Amino acid sequence: RVNGQRLWDSLMEMATIGATAKGGCNRQALTDLDRDGRDLFVRWCREAGCSIDIDAMGNIFVRRPGRNPDLPPVLTGSHLDTQPTGGRFDGVYGVLAGLEVIRSLNDAGIETEAPLEVAVWTNEEGARFSPAMIGSGVWSGEFDLDYAYGRTDKDGKTFGDELQRIGYRGETEARARPLAAAFEVHIEQGPILEQEQKQIGVLSGVQGMHWYDLTLTGQPCHAGPSPMEGRRDPFMALHRILEQLYRLAEDHGPWARVTFGDIRAEPGSRNTVPEQLVLAVDLRHPDQQVLNAMDHSFREIAAAAAVEVGVEASIRDEWRSPAVAFAPQCVAAVRESVTELGYSNKEMVSGAGHDSVYISRVAPTGMIFVPCEKGLSHNEAENAQPEDLEAGANVLLHAMLKIATQ
Amino acid sequence: RVNGQRLWDSLMEMATIGATAKGGCNRQALTDLDRDGRDLFVRWCREAGCSIDIDAMGNIFVRRPGRNPDLPPVLTGSHLDTQPTGGRFDGVYGVLAGLEVIRSLNDAGIETEAPLEVAVWTNEEGARFSPAMIGSGVWSGEFDLDYAYGRTDKDGKTFGDELQRIGYRGETEARARPLAAAFEVHIEQGPILEQEQKQIGVLSGVQGMHWYDLTLTGQPCHAGPSPMEGRRDPFMALHRILEQLYRLAEDHGPWARVTFGDIRAEPGSRNTVPEQLVLAVDLRHPDQQVLNAMDHSFREIAAAAAVEVGVEASIRDEWRSPAVAFAPQCVAAVRESVTELGYSNKEMVSGAGHDSVYISRVAPTGMIFVPCEKGLSHNEAENAQPEDLEAGANVLLHAMLKIATQ
Ligand SMILES: NC(=O)NCCC(=O)O
Ligand SMILES: NC(=O)NCCC(=O)O
Repeated sequence: RVNGQRLWDSLMEMATIGATAKGGCNRQALTDLDRDGRDLFVRWCREAGCSIDIDAMGNIFVRRPGRNPDLPPVLTGSHLDTQPTGGRFDGVYGVLAGLEVIRSLNDAGIETEAPLEVAVWTNEEGARFSPAMIGSGVWSGEFDLDYAYGRTDKDGKTFGDELQRIGYRGETEARARPLAAAFEVHIEQGPILEQEQKQIGVLSGVQGMHWYDLTLTGQPCHAGPSPMEGRRDPFMALHRILEQLYRLAEDHGPWARVTFGDIRAEPGSRNTVPEQLVLAVDLRHPDQQVLNAMDHSFREIAAAAAVEVGVEASIRDEWRSPAVAFAPQCVAAVRESVTELGYSNKEMVSGAGHDSVYISRVAPTGMIFVPCEKGLSHNEAENAQPEDLEAGANVLLHAMLKIATQ
Repeated sequence: RVNGQRLWDSLMEMATIGATAKGGCNRQALTDLDRDGRDLFVRWCREAGCSIDIDAMGNIFVRRPGRNPDLPPVLTGSHLDTQPTGGRFDGVYGVLAGLEVIRSLNDAGIETEAPLEVAVWTNEEGARFSPAMIGSGVWSGEFDLDYAYGRTDKDGKTFGDELQRIGYRGETEARARPLAAAFEVHIEQGPILEQEQKQIGVLSGVQGMHWYDLTLTGQPCHAGPSPMEGRRDPFMALHRILEQLYRLAEDHGPWARVTFGDIRAEPGSRNTVPEQLVLAVDLRHPDQQVLNAMDHSFREIAAAAAVEVGVEASIRDEWRSPAVAFAPQCVAAVRESVTELGYSNKEMVSGAGHDSVYISRVAPTGMIFVPCEKGLSHNEAENAQPEDLEAGANVLLHAMLKIATQ
């Protein structure tokens, strides 16, 4: 069993880096604070006797050797970056639970057959640099390194330059190696476990998600003398599209999600009808067929609204992450561990994307969820109970040991 | 009569400063380009034998002496700043028509009894620094100097610092002096004169306009695991408010205007329901009573939509410019000049705010409009015909001479 207090203390110490006034964390990818968080984690891992390797994407791999160095390792991990107004648990919990597994095995003097590894994946959130999960995405072959290096934040800074700047551009090629298995423990970020009073979620997969930029282009004109009826005003299309997309979510049942995370107007002058609105659209559904139908309807809705008010709508596909089913042997290892430990539990699908989505393409992968307060995440008030975090880390420990063998 | 070719050539030379790829102008207030435009204008005025005075708001006053230095001057003028995607005529035409009046009087060797002045008012557009017409607004006592100096652009730079930086913070107090009368000639920025094939608009006043920031505050949460029905999503209020405000404009007849020039989301992350949306709202009507009713309905609509979806709506009054009626003697001077010159014309109310709105509070004021192509303004494609611009300048010359007397 892990040391729950030590895990909690480490979480709270990491949470001081980028702590916000409202009790959350702002430690966005490849900022100075991201570097400080990485430095702290690396120091802890060295103190735990591990070796460190950093790849060209800034992914950090912490290794605890096994008896048999030729066996592929059992890997766990998650991310240290946060949303701009993020919480203290999203991602960092999965990283520090991995470290706690290693610390606990050290305490107990347990050696494993296969090596164990804890990974920190770069820029999982996709908040500063779109898309999400780009560190694990390059590593697993979904994206090219050059594509990742060229991604820009809102100030036009590139991923590559910022990675170099914080000193975490490693020499090792960012490319998957054989793994015996990979596990990730994470807060649920939704309300189900709390509502159903279950302590552990055994994940069977991750829902599909599509990201888009919808650009509505009209004709700028003066707010005063221009008659309403002659205008080609992107906002007139916007409200129709928003309304119909919320209805689209309703029409596709309780698992469909439609989110607009960002919007901007060009030129953005108070007394000028904007030439352009650019809206960030996020559509999700656990069933890829349904998500594809939603994708299709979205295009129709945007096109029809644009025609109705005389503006142009164009949709750029920013990112697609298809629905994922995890490896049966990893789901089984998690399920058996939960049963052994006697925790209440529920089999479920993740609503959020995780690094495990990409890792699952190149290695048998499984995930573990613990409850989070009111299901609130991507919010500074994000919270989780120490006993649940401890339980999740215990499940992780058992599942990893099942594959790595003592 | 003025020299229409010289006026056109000066307009086209000024339009090279901040020229955009699409044939417009981006010469926003207190930028380096604004300074370059001012420098060119000041040089032309010195060449025309005028004296220059600059006040603490950066308003430029160009003076051509009269026979009687004790008489209050007859003033004309407008602004040199543009929208970010602005045209070549909005504002600059009124300034250069004033210069053309002086050049023409010089050519003809005509002396006036009262002095003549041409003013360049700082930051009329309100695009870089809100509100609009702040240079004439401080001068006429509507705003304090400190209020103006403290206004910030989107990068957080202050009006005061930027004015100092471009070297146009003058020593003279920004405060109204007695004027015999003030006139301003401007492109219509709307379609009426063109549609009715009239060459000159004789303005009886300016419609009322209100600017607001509407802030919708919800609860940030994760785009994936958060069920739709539990969300407090500002976008869900936004589309209801947009739709109802467009309907509000319809309900208040053909002169009501509702414009949303800018919007931003906080934190603005693709996979997070925004905590806040901030929407710039511009409401206008020529009848101040109707505008007040629209103001009232706007508050009700925003409050009701917020309650309906569980977010908070707060409205900040950014600016109010009540409906204005111009001085009868100035309207008469314009009307008589148009009749003498034989131009087709129409009496009308301005849909756009102009520096004359504030000047009219401290001096008898009148305005002259000329047609602009398709009524398009605050657009790089803004266009006007040389013969119309010449006609407007002739009306200005005659109206000024009526008051200043030869
Ligand atoms: N776990 C998490 O917040 N991931 C970000 C990717 C997503 O948008 O689901
Ligand atoms: N003329 C002009 O574009 N003025 C700006 C102020 C307004 O918004 O009406």
